[in-house]
Amino acid sequence: MKNPIRIAILGYGNLGRGTELALRNCPDMKLVAFFTRRDPASLKTLSPDVPVYSVDKAEELKDEIDVIVLCGGSATDLPEQSPKYAKYFNIVDSFDTHAKIPEHFENCDKSAKESGKTALISAGWDPGMFSLMRLLGGAILPQGKDYTFWGKGVSQGHSDAIRRIEGVLDAKQYTIPVPEALERVRSGENPELNTREKHTRECFVVAAPDADKARIEQEIKTMPNYFADYDTTVHFISKEELIRDHSGIPHGGFVMRSGETGINGETKHMIEYSLRLGSNPEFTASVLICCARAVYRMNSEGFTGAKTIFDVPPAYFSPKSGEELRKELL
Amino acid sequence: MKNPIRIAILGYGNLGRGTELALRNCPDMKLVAFFTRRDPASLKTLSPDVPVYSVDKAEELKDEIDVIVLCGGSATDLPEQSPKYAKYFNIVDSFDTHAKIPEHFENCDKSAKESGKTALISAGWDPGMFSLMRLLGGAILPQGKDYTFWGKGVSQGHSDAIRRIEGVLDAKQYTIPVPEALERVRSGENPELNTREKHTRECFVVAAPDADKARIEQEIKTMPNYFADYDTTVHFISKEELIRDHSGIPHGGFVMRSGETGINGETKHMIEYSLRLGSNPEFTASVLICCARAVYRMNSEGFTGAKTIFDVPPAYFSPKSGEELRKELL
Repeated sequence: MKNPIRIAILGYGNLGRGTELALRNCPDMKLVAFFTRRDPASLKTLSPDVPVYSVDKAEELKDEIDVIVLCGGSATDLPEQSPKYAKYFNIVDSFDTHAKIPEHFENCDKSAKESGKTALISAGWDPGMFSLMRLLGGAILPQGKDYTFWGKGVSQGHSDAIRRIEGVLDAKQYTIPVPEALERVRSGENPELNTREKHTRECFVVAAPDADKARIEQEIKTMPNYFADYDTTVHFISKEELIRDHSGIPHGGFVMRSGETGINGETKHMIEYSLRLGSNPEFTASVLICCARAVYRMNSEGFTGAKTIFDVPPAYFSPKSGEELRKELL
Repeated sequence: MKNPIRIAILGYGNLGRGTELALRNCPDMKLVAFFTRRDPASLKTLSPDVPVYSVDKAEELKDEIDVIVLCGGSATDLPEQSPKYAKYFNIVDSFDTHAKIPEHFENCDKSAKESGKTALISAGWDPGMFSLMRLLGGAILPQGKDYTFWGKGVSQGHSDAIRRIEGVLDAKQYTIPVPEALERVRSGENPELNTREKHTRECFVVAAPDADKARIEQEIKTMPNYFADYDTTVHFISKEELIRDHSGIPHGGFVMRSGETGINGETKHMIEYSLRLGSNPEFTASVLICCARAVYRMNSEGFTGAKTIFDVPPAYFSPKSGEELRKELL
């Protein structure tokens, strides 16, 4: 393909690697650089032909790169990196600290407006595709009710919380939607569901040989915010079993809009969007890459500043032309 | 609400009536006129305070109306009406003759560009939301396969085809997705499915008292294009049963994207969007109304010409501000 969109990846964890892989399916884009805070020589990527630079070099390369995909974490990396790099680059990030999105948006908007760049924040599937489905469902059926369920999938934050308990060597936590709750929503009943009724939590824990398992289980199940409000199951397994059976990072979930129309709301409708993802970071990365394409185009057409998935004309996500899309997909 | 968007409805069949009802859920919009080709005095709407005009008066009212929602049929009404009214108004239509969409788009684009208006064509759920899901699924997971299933729902075209058979007084036809086909797609098997494997057709027929039912059933089941390629079931029922049990116009369906990522496509993902609609025209109308909101905004910002759902930044569908959307739904 002529003049592919030149993409750089900053941060090489699961998401960075997922982005590297997702780009292989996109011939209209080309991976041209990795940036890392580590020693560049130490980074072993899957793309030996693509140079690895120190983040300190990023600014020097600003004319060589069309979009940087920021693959850092939301806790400390992105709040600093996104506004910083939006001063020189079009960026995409997956910032997902919900309560801080408005502030993050403002910070990125300021940088990107000053530089004339475009910064698409909070991309991925939630926030991201799930957000888009909530918007569309509510816009189409204003008389209605939203439901979001997550899972079955691995929650990194909950797994980490278990690992911090004394006597725990390793752990994986799965968030699981309660099947009865899904069915009640699908039935059109519009139930009010509390936290415990929506999801259960299942934990696979590797304990130290001399650890008090009863105490560990008790500490997990009563942990405020993370587990106390849920029905939680704890399984103690060996390290080998954890590696064999729980090394994947699957996830997914459901966004449902139950709504009504008619003279007295007598007509019922149900919209349901669901994801079943073999790998959370690989799917998230696939969304980021579509967003990188959109950001590049929006910037080329003069749409600068911070954006979210709500602001992107969907055609910009696709490599196909308007004519092709209308002919093949409409 | 101050300065609501002023909406007119042209055509008062099921879709026009659905649009009238959908507007009641949208305080940012106001229904200001009906246009009809019939005698205006003969039209009994659900909104006695809203004037009914002859279509001949439309042009005179162009400064009183922000968007006309065209609620005619795709066979003969919209190909003529959409380009015609786009000369004076922002319009939304639900044109769904797939093969002619490119031509219809060009005709509307020409009119709307000349007038500085915005014409959003082919809105609804398919074409419409299903098209959007096909676009998003393919953009996120370029290595993958698309599936669209329709139903369970009433197909107007197939019902009409049965009614044209000699000896048939009335009929309703349901299109039904084959459950095994849905499950095979969900399993990630990526099956190749032929027409017969995807959908079945179920017909409820009221025959004339002296009609030869065996012949009618045979004529239905062997009708080319409509039924011959499907497993079709025919039930003969009374007129009373048809009215009692089959007066609704439910519909729905599924858009699925099965895709893969990873080094060798080893990671599997499944995206599924489904609709279960109590009334096809009321839901379609609800989408048209969101689109009318979007069209008004796009036009206000200078985006003129023909558009489809692929061209609309999703935020434009919602009455909420960007700040509200980011805070509440992202």
